[in-house]
Amino acid sequence: MNTFGQLFRLTDFGESHGAAIGGVVDGMPAGIEINFEEVQKELDRRRPGQSSLTTARKESDTVKFLSGIFEGKSTGTPIGFIIENSDARSKDYENMRHTFRPNHADLTYAQKYGIRDHRGGGRSSARETAVRVVGGALARQVLAMCGISITARAVRIGSKTDPREFEGEILEAKRDRDSVGGIIECIVSGVPSGLGEPVFGKLQAMLAGAMLSINAAKGFEYGDGFAAACMRGSEQVDTPYLDEDSGRVLTQTNHSGGIQGGISNGADIVFRVAFKPVATLPRPLETINDQREKVILEAHGRHDPCVVPRAIPVVEAMAAMTILDAMMMAKALKL
Amino acid sequence: MNTFGQLFRLTDFGESHGAAIGGVVDGMPAGIEINFEEVQKELDRRRPGQSSLTTARKESDTVKFLSGIFEGKSTGTPIGFIIENSDARSKDYENMRHTFRPNHADLTYAQKYGIRDHRGGGRSSARETAVRVVGGALARQVLAMCGISITARAVRIGSKTDPREFEGEILEAKRDRDSVGGIIECIVSGVPSGLGEPVFGKLQAMLAGAMLSINAAKGFEYGDGFAAACMRGSEQVDTPYLDEDSGRVLTQTNHSGGIQGGISNGADIVFRVAFKPVATLPRPLETINDQREKVILEAHGRHDPCVVPRAIPVVEAMAAMTILDAMMMAKALKL
Amino acid sequence: MNTFGQLFRLTDFGESHGAAIGGVVDGMPAGIEINFEEVQKELDRRRPGQSSLTTARKESDTVKFLSGIFEGKSTGTPIGFIIENSDARSKDYENMRHTFRPNHADLTYAQKYGIRDHRGGGRSSARETAVRVVGGALARQVLAMCGISITARAVRIGSKTDPREFEGEILEAKRDRDSVGGIIECIVSGVPSGLGEPVFGKLQAMLAGAMLSINAAKGFEYGDGFAAACMRGSEQVDTPYLDEDSGRVLTQTNHSGGIQGGISNGADIVFRVAFKPVATLPRPLETINDQREKVILEAHGRHDPCVVPRAIPVVEAMAAMTILDAMMMAKALKL
Amino acid sequence: MNTFGQLFRLTDFGESHGAAIGGVVDGMPAGIEINFEEVQKELDRRRPGQSSLTTARKESDTVKFLSGIFEGKSTGTPIGFIIENSDARSKDYENMRHTFRPNHADLTYAQKYGIRDHRGGGRSSARETAVRVVGGALARQVLAMCGISITARAVRIGSKTDPREFEGEILEAKRDRDSVGGIIECIVSGVPSGLGEPVFGKLQAMLAGAMLSINAAKGFEYGDGFAAACMRGSEQVDTPYLDEDSGRVLTQTNHSGGIQGGISNGADIVFRVAFKPVATLPRPLETINDQREKVILEAHGRHDPCVVPRAIPVVEAMAAMTILDAMMMAKALKL
Repeated sequence: MNTFGQLFRLTDFGESHGAAIGGVVDGMPAGIEINFEEVQKELDRRRPGQSSLTTARKESDTVKFLSGIFEGKSTGTPIGFIIENSDARSKDYENMRHTFRPNHADLTYAQKYGIRDHRGGGRSSARETAVRVVGGALARQVLAMCGISITARAVRIGSKTDPREFEGEILEAKRDRDSVGGIIECIVSGVPSGLGEPVFGKLQAMLAGAMLSINAAKGFEYGDGFAAACMRGSEQVDTPYLDEDSGRVLTQTNHSGGIQGGISNGADIVFRVAFKPVATLPRPLETINDQREKVILEAHGRHDPCVVPRAIPVVEAMAAMTILDAMMMAKALKL
Repeated sequence: MNTFGQLFRLTDFGESHGAAIGGVVDGMPAGIEINFEEVQKELDRRRPGQSSLTTARKESDTVKFLSGIFEGKSTGTPIGFIIENSDARSKDYENMRHTFRPNHADLTYAQKYGIRDHRGGGRSSARETAVRVVGGALARQVLAMCGISITARAVRIGSKTDPREFEGEILEAKRDRDSVGGIIECIVSGVPSGLGEPVFGKLQAMLAGAMLSINAAKGFEYGDGFAAACMRGSEQVDTPYLDEDSGRVLTQTNHSGGIQGGISNGADIVFRVAFKPVATLPRPLETINDQREKVILEAHGRHDPCVVPRAIPVVEAMAAMTILDAMMMAKALKL
Repeated sequence: MNTFGQLFRLTDFGESHGAAIGGVVDGMPAGIEINFEEVQKELDRRRPGQSSLTTARKESDTVKFLSGIFEGKSTGTPIGFIIENSDARSKDYENMRHTFRPNHADLTYAQKYGIRDHRGGGRSSARETAVRVVGGALARQVLAMCGISITARAVRIGSKTDPREFEGEILEAKRDRDSVGGIIECIVSGVPSGLGEPVFGKLQAMLAGAMLSINAAKGFEYGDGFAAACMRGSEQVDTPYLDEDSGRVLTQTNHSGGIQGGISNGADIVFRVAFKPVATLPRPLETINDQREKVILEAHGRHDPCVVPRAIPVVEAMAAMTILDAMMMAKALKL
Repeated sequence: MNTFGQLFRLTDFGESHGAAIGGVVDGMPAGIEINFEEVQKELDRRRPGQSSLTTARKESDTVKFLSGIFEGKSTGTPIGFIIENSDARSKDYENMRHTFRPNHADLTYAQKYGIRDHRGGGRSSARETAVRVVGGALARQVLAMCGISITARAVRIGSKTDPREFEGEILEAKRDRDSVGGIIECIVSGVPSGLGEPVFGKLQAMLAGAMLSINAAKGFEYGDGFAAACMRGSEQVDTPYLDEDSGRVLTQTNHSGGIQGGISNGADIVFRVAFKPVATLPRPLETINDQREKVILEAHGRHDPCVVPRAIPVVEAMAAMTILDAMMMAKALKL
């Protein structure tokens, strides 16, 4: 439901235009000096209104920690936090009270719950991902102490795969009153071997579930991914060898993306997440209203022409929580 | 770990060459007349030794139910079952006791546990998926009563996308002492709207986790999937409309793959799973042994040149359990 | 850890003297008109400073809801809420920074986490139970719609079992600079038959776990409880019969406390919870400090001479969440 | 439902008169030499037909392990096992097909599921506890390696508290065609401090839930338990001191039963479980049948006059799994 993870757990709440969004991190190890600047820096990476590429909505996105931290250190008890919703121009959405935006959760929420907070998509708004970024920022600080780093970047925007072309592709979509999708690649370095649990707890299964829970994500692959389906087995053998320098067993290649049999093998974990173009378009769209009548919808909200730039820190955050959770699980099961 | 699902739960155990594999289905609704022939038929679809395309290993794969069923009907109590391992030619694997097969779980299991059952891959063998097929067959019977059907098929084998070419592609790989990958597409029809839970319990997240837990799966996508990343938003609008005949709200297209905002919208749920070529090749491969010495491994085991044909019923089984679990969750949360 | 329940879930955070305590209720059914006055009334029942029987600490204990409620109704999304900590006279506790109070969590938290928020017991303070009362108040409103009511009362205070003697017993303990324990009995009426799951999910097991999670609770019993251990089987037969008026099967007696084989039988659910005397005494006590030196501790904090009066709404709250969770589970498992 | 524990997990299945009962232990640490004789010895302690005090039903109760163990050692993968049901004289119960025994689960199962396996109580039979004993026996072997031992004993049978009087009390009840209850006390020694999680995961809450899941258990208390409710705070202060010999902080008394603030403090964990007299009496009892008609039931099954002797190993088994689970959880949460 709204809790992620088994041992390092984030419980997430809040709507786009409610009083606040927030969460509870349960399972944070005790005694860790929290770097609040780092947490805020991660939030700022996700924050809107930073460039011509993102929505004009201004959110300071300041996190306020309420518990679980004493004199700057984690105490081992749950860390509750909130991020207040400022600049929530709810009336922008008044015309959506009775109208369902196409490709959005408006209709499905109405069908599921019989009631919905229509303002800015309510619970289904990507605003909620700010909470994940806070959880991920805390997880990252623990992982960093273990020498694990996580870096995501865009590897495709629409038809372009050359990063120098990305901004142009997004601005062109914006100019066309359209939106565009893309692919984010994430690399987790320094992961010890042995993370991930057979059978249903395979590390790639946990990562796939985490990534597909992100708004607008449409696909996940790791290692050679979908390309592997077109290849021969002989083309993707990761031959293991003993690295004399490190004394560790490595593989000459990494078609496996750092995971074999569901368990990390010590190589970089490499996966990609596909994101669709933003569903909301700054142009009239045909849809239906709650009277099931055909209507034309004019979106007045402020939206990104491409989610990828702001989704990068969210992908990293979900990866951080997933890897830390897997580390804690592996630790628990070892005598 | 080894339990899948939250309300309809399958706990799975067993190694490839142990006494038996088996499972426990917890959450099966009471009073359902079990169609045992159907369960066995699903198992037979996965069974090896059926054609030139699959391994010669002969397994009758007969499931024996031990509990939870009384006079042919489910009682609501857990359904325990076992499938005995016959024809387990363990000595075929004696040469693997000290050697790690490349791209397999041999090395990662050894690193994680410090001990492993080397016979046929032990716990990491795809043999375990027979247990999932039993769980899925039970779930399917409940879903069928609700008018929900699940059908998966291969849409790519190696370089081919025309089904008439698939057998040839596999036999060619076999002839080359090689293996080949592929893509399976699964369609779930008759799903009511409202399944899936925000935020982390999005239906696509549950499906992605389920599919990536299948051996050799390397990627998952739903609806337009990775292709959506290359498209414009205007190209993938699923315009909703009121279907006069059914009185239901449908969408003119299904770029969303039947899921919007993580919740089913009543359209067919469409997703694809990418499978890599089988890692074990019938040819000498360089690897290392448990003394970390370089060795050449000759696989004597019996292996498929392509997992896709036998993975199809497994994909359907995991989809069936996921959808039924989501139905039960949606039911629980509705007053 | 800090989440209670499986389908109706309360995640609880906060320390006695932090910025705020709070929680997240996940699984609240959608479309329910929230009676905010009722929620506050429950909180007021638990609030300190109400009489000569309870601590002088003044807490307005005003709950602020942050999400999951739209225009007065639950939306089905998580309900986040906080209760700010006012009048937290932290310096009262400065002398406890390095000293462990006997029979408290001070020492065990220090041993477990290596760090602790010493102010007012931090996370181990009964202050946290206010969060449970909010969760319980929401659950109660759903239960009330189903005709289920929950009532707890003190049946023993120290040596007294006559309610008219309770206030005197508490005041006498207070006068003696001492504290006194008691027993609370809780009756849940209107529960349908069929709640509770075999084997580990027996209704009494869920209730026992819920009650023993309350601060100062030392024991749980249901039906005849411990007295049953001294009796013969023939003395506690609940003979079933068909009640002509209601057309329901009832039992002539209720030694079973409304639960048979772990499942509710439709009779009143009756259980009792034993509470120890408050550990903090307004008198000098020998203990040790974090240098493991023997010291004499003078408690300056404000404490109740008896927890029972304020524990009554907490017992009701935990019962409400447990019963609603069991109802949702039973619903999920029924086709 | 039918899975116990979070990290050390037992999934339990089987009916009294089905083909077999069994379970799956998930989370058993790898590399542990399994002492099969010890496992069988525990099962034998619970086995019926051992003396004049227990039912005449003869069950060899031989456990057959199917997975998770390789060459005598645990592999870290799930341990599946079954115990076949021999000597299941189902026709003894034919007269119960349509009749509900008083104080049994017969009626509640029928109300909950609409169908039940009437033979010997089906799923609700205490026969299921043999599965718990196997899980507990495995947990004990891990605990023993950590210096933790668990011992339970009867401290009351009916009106008697002197062990020398227990056999007489039971035989007298049997002679009277009646049954008698009792209380079991369990002591867990060698537990490190720091086990148990705030708030809902308090160690006593986990133990209470575990114990109340045992058939016929009616109450749980730890430390001073219900007696604490009658006492003054000054009578139960556990004064801590530094033990010069061990260098550990101990308490002069153990009113807390080894748990303070929900977390173990290193002292012996002491708790008691109350058991009711067996509900089935070897005498005619008035009840109703599935036509809701009043009938007289003559129990032909073989039953114990007192469950306490056979419940002792079950209490120990549940305690062992609970403590090991708590140890693994504490380990996971520590950096």
